[in-house]
Amino acid sequence: MEKVAVLGGGSWATALVKILSENKSEVHWWMRNQSDVQHLIEYRHNPRYLSQVSFDLEYVKPSTDIKAVVAASDWVILVVPAAFVQLALADLPPDAFKGKVMVSAIKGMIPKENILITDYMERHYHVPASHQLVVAGPCHAEEVALEKQSYLTIGSHNMQTAEVFCALLRNRYVKANPLDDLDGIEYCAVMKNVIALACGIARGLNYGDNFQAVLVSNAMFEIERFLDAIMPIHRDLSGSAYLGDLLVTAYSQFSRNRTFGNMIGRGYTVKSAQVEMNMVAEGYYAVQSIYELNKELKVDMPITQAVYMILYERISPAVEFSILQEKFI
Amino acid sequence: MEKVAVLGGGSWATALVKILSENKSEVHWWMRNQSDVQHLIEYRHNPRYLSQVSFDLEYVKPSTDIKAVVAASDWVILVVPAAFVQLALADLPPDAFKGKVMVSAIKGMIPKENILITDYMERHYHVPASHQLVVAGPCHAEEVALEKQSYLTIGSHNMQTAEVFCALLRNRYVKANPLDDLDGIEYCAVMKNVIALACGIARGLNYGDNFQAVLVSNAMFEIERFLDAIMPIHRDLSGSAYLGDLLVTAYSQFSRNRTFGNMIGRGYTVKSAQVEMNMVAEGYYAVQSIYELNKELKVDMPITQAVYMILYERISPAVEFSILQEKFI
Repeated sequence: MEKVAVLGGGSWATALVKILSENKSEVHWWMRNQSDVQHLIEYRHNPRYLSQVSFDLEYVKPSTDIKAVVAASDWVILVVPAAFVQLALADLPPDAFKGKVMVSAIKGMIPKENILITDYMERHYHVPASHQLVVAGPCHAEEVALEKQSYLTIGSHNMQTAEVFCALLRNRYVKANPLDDLDGIEYCAVMKNVIALACGIARGLNYGDNFQAVLVSNAMFEIERFLDAIMPIHRDLSGSAYLGDLLVTAYSQFSRNRTFGNMIGRGYTVKSAQVEMNMVAEGYYAVQSIYELNKELKVDMPITQAVYMILYERISPAVEFSILQEKFI
Repeated sequence: MEKVAVLGGGSWATALVKILSENKSEVHWWMRNQSDVQHLIEYRHNPRYLSQVSFDLEYVKPSTDIKAVVAASDWVILVVPAAFVQLALADLPPDAFKGKVMVSAIKGMIPKENILITDYMERHYHVPASHQLVVAGPCHAEEVALEKQSYLTIGSHNMQTAEVFCALLRNRYVKANPLDDLDGIEYCAVMKNVIALACGIARGLNYGDNFQAVLVSNAMFEIERFLDAIMPIHRDLSGSAYLGDLLVTAYSQFSRNRTFGNMIGRGYTVKSAQVEMNMVAEGYYAVQSIYELNKELKVDMPITQAVYMILYERISPAVEFSILQEKFI
């Protein structure tokens, strides 16, 4: 029986616990809230997210003790918002992950440091690249809960480890495949939230389907230029870990980034949109990290630039998008 | 004042007449129905499609006389369903288009002959490649009517002519750009309707957003393989004339192909779906042409294969899609 830690209590964490525990891995599930853990033990579902999913406590061990959860596991899946990674791991010693495989299911970067989650784990916890994996979709947690056919790509520098992890995930409604592009997948997942945010802004500004399709097309080129600058290997961005993951976020009603962008487009301030949503839109932090990174790279990234200007420099969405609309072809 | 013939009375034809006539081209508009022409002259809108659009009869000349319409024009835009091209042009002599530029705004192929519209015009009306253009989106007619920002790509072997035509289209809400890949754009437009049909079938079978994103990703590879076999030049399929046009069709509620596919997925027969929709879904014919063409090319085209089997061999959609779902990565 494989022992897997899942660190995080959100919807994506909940979906991953469902998949892993149904496959009879022993899942040590860390969440911050003692009352959520109590609820899970008593009623066998997460009170906050995907509450229709019922867990078998023979395989699911909820806990607020992160040290015990990590110590009990061979695989550790990180699935908290990127902005909270440092806080979530604060109680763990630097050697807490020694010998374990770290799996990032986070789509974001460490704010201020502007580094990927895997880079952060390497830098601060000495987890070698060979022991790191990243999870990409396209895979809405909500559809996993409904057991709709979904696909996961596991990015890695170590295809053997990735393949073992894929086997822990595969079931009737989940296909999982390894892919040898850890960094590309991770950066693309970050960018995708920026693009989803842009799609939401466009919708909020009353642009239609024609414009959104052109926005996504242009976004693919922007992502390609960025990846070629930061991590230049040959990759086909039409793959489901890249384009597929972008589409599911950009076109979905479930996307928080899209919803957040939509409110911005309709005239909400950043603060009021965040208060109203009562949630973190990862793209809000992601765009700042990418923007900062790109100060040195100097890649042509008009969409990232526009979203940054709107969110951080309070430039009018209508103004930024009228510039974008002229640049697009 | 440029003189442009628009042959066809559907929604896309109506949108093109709106764009061209607002730019003060003289538009000779052929439609089959005398009563529709009468209605247009009397009330200045098309009674059947985009009826909210009002036309200025100083620039729009509706007529059922196709010979006169073509004779009066320097540019001829073909925008009838592909299956009706032969019938629509039947009264015209083989030299009717001599010296004129032919523009195909059709997304389909000539059934049975399984050739592109531009090839048909070259073969039967001796229109040279240098005098042919094709129009690609992403551009829903419905959004043109609403004057939402839209983009057109004009495919051509003759960039100068394409640029002149682009200038006839550009306005406040339409951007138009030439692209030197006439055949690629034309084939891609045909394939896109097959893929939209597949997306509809998937939705009808109750697959979700995750699956659709993977379907579109896999479709991009299928289109790439097909284009590389039939017309191998370097092209970047992320462009808006390829991916963009596919997205707007695959994800839109406006798409007839998607709607038709959805009914098939829910268990309608082809005949009952066609009766209920009272419309031709271009993808229905397109998939047969591509399938026939591919008997010689032998490209790996699992989506095309599945759609063909469902529509023409009455294989169960659930069976075909369970095969597809295993093939996708």
